[in-house]
Amino acid sequence: MSQGPSRRGLFAGLGAAGATGLLTGGLIGAAVDRGQEPDSVRERVLSRSGPREGLPPALHTPTPAHVHVIALDLSADTPAEVAQQARSVLGLWREQVRELHEHGTEGVMEGSPTQGLHPASLGITLGLGPSLLERAGLEDRRPEELEDLPDFSTDRLDPALCGGDLMLHVGAEDPVVVSAAVRHLLGSVREHARVRWALPGFQRGAATAQDSSATPRNLMGQIDGTVNPHPEEAIFASQVVASHTDAATSWMDGGTYVVVRRIRMLLDDWFDLSPQERERSVGRRLDDGAPLGGENEDDRPDLSAKGEDGEPVIAANAHIRLASPEHTLGARMLRRGFNYDLGWGPGGRAEAGLLFTAWQADPRTGFTAVQRHLDEGGDALNEYVRHEGSAVFAVPPVREDEPFMAHELWS
Amino acid sequence: MSQGPSRRGLFAGLGAAGATGLLTGGLIGAAVDRGQEPDSVRERVLSRSGPREGLPPALHTPTPAHVHVIALDLSADTPAEVAQQARSVLGLWREQVRELHEHGTEGVMEGSPTQGLHPASLGITLGLGPSLLERAGLEDRRPEELEDLPDFSTDRLDPALCGGDLMLHVGAEDPVVVSAAVRHLLGSVREHARVRWALPGFQRGAATAQDSSATPRNLMGQIDGTVNPHPEEAIFASQVVASHTDAATSWMDGGTYVVVRRIRMLLDDWFDLSPQERERSVGRRLDDGAPLGGENEDDRPDLSAKGEDGEPVIAANAHIRLASPEHTLGARMLRRGFNYDLGWGPGGRAEAGLLFTAWQADPRTGFTAVQRHLDEGGDALNEYVRHEGSAVFAVPPVREDEPFMAHELWS
Repeated sequence: MSQGPSRRGLFAGLGAAGATGLLTGGLIGAAVDRGQEPDSVRERVLSRSGPREGLPPALHTPTPAHVHVIALDLSADTPAEVAQQARSVLGLWREQVRELHEHGTEGVMEGSPTQGLHPASLGITLGLGPSLLERAGLEDRRPEELEDLPDFSTDRLDPALCGGDLMLHVGAEDPVVVSAAVRHLLGSVREHARVRWALPGFQRGAATAQDSSATPRNLMGQIDGTVNPHPEEAIFASQVVASHTDAATSWMDGGTYVVVRRIRMLLDDWFDLSPQERERSVGRRLDDGAPLGGENEDDRPDLSAKGEDGEPVIAANAHIRLASPEHTLGARMLRRGFNYDLGWGPGGRAEAGLLFTAWQADPRTGFTAVQRHLDEGGDALNEYVRHEGSAVFAVPPVREDEPFMAHELWS
Repeated sequence: MSQGPSRRGLFAGLGAAGATGLLTGGLIGAAVDRGQEPDSVRERVLSRSGPREGLPPALHTPTPAHVHVIALDLSADTPAEVAQQARSVLGLWREQVRELHEHGTEGVMEGSPTQGLHPASLGITLGLGPSLLERAGLEDRRPEELEDLPDFSTDRLDPALCGGDLMLHVGAEDPVVVSAAVRHLLGSVREHARVRWALPGFQRGAATAQDSSATPRNLMGQIDGTVNPHPEEAIFASQVVASHTDAATSWMDGGTYVVVRRIRMLLDDWFDLSPQERERSVGRRLDDGAPLGGENEDDRPDLSAKGEDGEPVIAANAHIRLASPEHTLGARMLRRGFNYDLGWGPGGRAEAGLLFTAWQADPRTGFTAVQRHLDEGGDALNEYVRHEGSAVFAVPPVREDEPFMAHELWS
């Protein structure tokens, strides 16, 4: 155990305001803001993530067109063995991630499927699940933030699609780049870990978007990801970046916590609704994503506005009302939604929906606070979605000088 | 029943040589040749397939980055009902396909996920399975070419992943465009048909390829699709385009037959091989796809060449030797391979491999002839692949003046 109560990483010693300067100045310097540059598509295709310090690639904007999120369980049983195995896997991955970020799969193995492709902004993010700390006998090092989510009444969770000791989050602008990197990373740890669940996701490619800086839409047609905190905002550090001043949990200082949810969408039922019914359920217009009664996507929803009929313009059970900061004690998180569409499973059930990821300083005041309101408030969207998978992972800050992730935790 | 023995569509009355001129001049005029134009990426993104005559979009080059192939079964039981249902579904789809090709999903429904996206070369291709003709009481109209494939000794087929009354093949440069179009087309026929199996596939996006005219690689890293017949070649019409001069089967004159195979790859085992072992199995170099002993990808493999050790340079069981025209009576087909990567199934089995499609005038002398040699000859790749799904469909020519596909068959 080491330094103790000082804040770690590039956020060391900075309050929210101070961190903001750093964020703008360099920490997420490789990130592209929503204000689109003319060559932003080309940039996504040509970029290498390269080595980064601080927050991992998954939090950088813009988000890639393709991701694969994979949860793994270590095979060992005793705490000492689990801890040893975790060190081995994280040590292997640290080297491989560094190499992949610098050279791509084509640079680290012969005969890669990615030969002849641009780097496509390949970015790899690792996470540690609460079960890992328990199984490794490190329960006393587990931050309170890292605990399994509470049950929600609308959950339809399948245990086989939940949890996991380790998370691998691989994103890139090209699906072949993602697939090859995933296989390379998993191939090396086959003896130690097995896949618990996995979900490949996508959003529109930057090249296909008329405006690649526009907020993407999900398979329901909703613009999804409005009102995300931006790295330029003071609020970003306090809402997204974890702060841990005590020695036991300082390994997570400057990191973040990610909630991953597999949310199946009942798309046939959804598109059976009239456009007006769909707008009422969400509380936003279908065409431009503006809140009902508003003008632009970024307008603050007027929750008190009433129509000529005396009814609220934004319905009492509209998704954006229940999810709004006014209803959730100011809770915010960085949401990164991806679509999944795996075709149809046995019995003809469509396996399509949202691979939802939420990144925050504390899931209890982030995802959980918002989801509780959506759940208990009877979110109009609940009828059209099924939460089938759920997991939470600690994402420690990336430190190039460490031999493996969260080194302080294991030493 | 109508015209009788004349050849249909734009191929009417043309031999291979004559058809070639037409092909070059106009029939596949919207297609882009392998000779890359500087703006070919932009073209793939901005293109609308639009209404086409003759061969369907799936055969046009370049192939899109994303496809979803879906097999459906009609719900009716009696031959008269099945035939009536087929007419209804094909009638609905004819209109919808026309609209989607012209306006995209965003142009035909409110609140589409594709709002704000470019057309991305959306192309929809329909097919009819042998089971449909049997069930509709049209056995006497079934061409001999349209029969279930024979068993191969290396098959590991799952009946739930095989066959189907109807095929929907939706391709585009963007996964959201594919997903939205699929849902729109299936939504309208829910009462008539249910999904039997489905498989979404991908290859590298045009934007990510350093040379978007280069033959793509599959997940094994092989360059996959070399030695495809090109529309400019005289051989294309005779090998890919079906010719039917008798009245009973003339509804397929000018169409093509597609074989679809779901081929799981044992990628861990494959990448455990040394690069040299992988090259020996395929018979081509990993880096540029040239046949062993050759210089360039397009070189004709020298099957008789021997090395200094007296052994064949291209091994006796190398994939390209067994698949070569010399070994398969000149059989050729238009191969369009896509990758699939659905993550890991129950028990931790990787669900990744090749969504292989082969388009030919006659599957018996095309796919079946080649696969028989690969199967019986002990193709070195057999150890690393599992054929789990299989289907064959008739793809009638597209005729804009018909109210639904293969109109002649149903009238």
